[in-house]
Amino acid sequence: MKTNTTELRVYYADTDHGGVVYYANYLKWFEVGRTEILRQAGFDCNDFEKQGVIAPVVEVHCSYKQPAKYNDIITIKTTIENIGNSSIKFNYKIIRKSDNESVAEGYTVNVFVNKETMKSTKITDNLRKALGN
Amino acid sequence: MKTNTTELRVYYADTDHGGVVYYANYLKWFEVGRTEILRQAGFDCNDFEKQGVIAPVVEVHCSYKQPAKYNDIITIKTTIENIGNSSIKFNYKIIRKSDNESVAEGYTVNVFVNKETMKSTKITDNLRKALGN
Amino acid sequence: MKTNTTELRVYYADTDHGGVVYYANYLKWFEVGRTEILRQAGFDCNDFEKQGVIAPVVEVHCSYKQPAKYNDIITIKTTIENIGNSSIKFNYKIIRKSDNESVAEGYTVNVFVNKETMKSTKITDNLRKALGN
Amino acid sequence: MKTNTTELRVYYADTDHGGVVYYANYLKWFEVGRTEILRQAGFDCNDFEKQGVIAPVVEVHCSYKQPAKYNDIITIKTTIENIGNSSIKFNYKIIRKSDNESVAEGYTVNVFVNKETMKSTKITDNLRKALGN
Repeated sequence: MKTNTTELRVYYADTDHGGVVYYANYLKWFEVGRTEILRQAGFDCNDFEKQGVIAPVVEVHCSYKQPAKYNDIITIKTTIENIGNSSIKFNYKIIRKSDNESVAEGYTVNVFVNKETMKSTKITDNLRKALGN
Repeated sequence: MKTNTTELRVYYADTDHGGVVYYANYLKWFEVGRTEILRQAGFDCNDFEKQGVIAPVVEVHCSYKQPAKYNDIITIKTTIENIGNSSIKFNYKIIRKSDNESVAEGYTVNVFVNKETMKSTKITDNLRKALGN
Repeated sequence: MKTNTTELRVYYADTDHGGVVYYANYLKWFEVGRTEILRQAGFDCNDFEKQGVIAPVVEVHCSYKQPAKYNDIITIKTTIENIGNSSIKFNYKIIRKSDNESVAEGYTVNVFVNKETMKSTKITDNLRKALGN
Repeated sequence: MKTNTTELRVYYADTDHGGVVYYANYLKWFEVGRTEILRQAGFDCNDFEKQGVIAPVVEVHCSYKQPAKYNDIITIKTTIENIGNSSIKFNYKIIRKSDNESVAEGYTVNVFVNKETMKSTKITDNLRKALGN
């Protein structure tokens, strides 16, 4: 199964008063991960939109293991657990680069829908093949 | 079991390019909900901190039912599902006020820890009673 | 000249690793202020959009006086300094409610434009009158 | 005078309901710019903090020229306009990489202060030399 690895730096903007990354901001990193694994497979989210298709998150889960902190470099490892008829389950590991420790793990389920009707739409064979399934 | 109800308005700041509230921002509303149910019970998060105790989220889950949109008034309904030795499980319903439809539901597990050692600490009887358990 | 006063609570989501509100988040409060002074005058930003008009910020300035902190209640005081042919200059004061101290002051210039052409469009007499000018 | 150039991708997280980058988020890019120009000169903000020094923004200005959009790659060009006794004025240009158009320009004034007393502190000769002044 395909994996995407993307690195990011933690800035003040990502942190909170507790001195660590604010818990909601890990979901922004999940977005980066799934966008980049699709791009790596040759698919740009703008292309989907031009075809009238969007892929909103219908479910998210995250377990926080250790706090990521200001100035850390973190690695987002994204894999695809499952491709259904019209949905994809993405798994994410957020790793602190300096010591390779996992700081958070989670998943999202994204459903491909027609932008106008908001009805689910079948994932194309092209995308399915490109994602290695 | 105690319930807290807090209303908020959706601004541009909360939304994304898809025309709806960005999925990570629901977690900000979960934070509002658990802060306000604690305040309603007489506990201010600043007081915990002065006692050297913080309550980070160790787990979050959210199911997205319908999109909340710009200018909507949303209602955050927070309840407490369970109080363990050192953790609380909060449940959240995000409701669109105009038609009372559920837009999202989720939970967080928060663990009370000593701010210095980051070891878990027992929830006090005062807090337990105030939360109705 | 009309004034709008809106109160908000500071949550973890608004703060950063320095223990204070992150400097970009004051601009979210400016958005709240200008949206609410328009609403108070009977104008809802959704109505403008339905007429094909949006009012993006073309310029912002903010001076930071004192840090707003977690759990503070802050007051956003918004006034209108000037209404041009197609632009409005809004002034904002962010005040800490507990001691009435100014924590930040700033302004934005918003230009009314046609959403399709992005050309500037004249402010209607209705809006001009409602804003007291 | 030294210049730092840093590239970033625009994600959904950065955008708003208007289909463009939310105006407050440009200030996050300004933070990236000034952090990276300091890092390039050999100074890590974590090092300042260990010495008890922080450098909060006391003033920000931004002019918005054209909207940055979802999936754009933007270039942050940061220069230092002036180094005072205890403050630095940073200039920023945000450029859309695809056509080299300026999307926004602005500046911040950052004051170096002692973290405990919040009194301003002299910028060291080391930092002044490294920043090329």
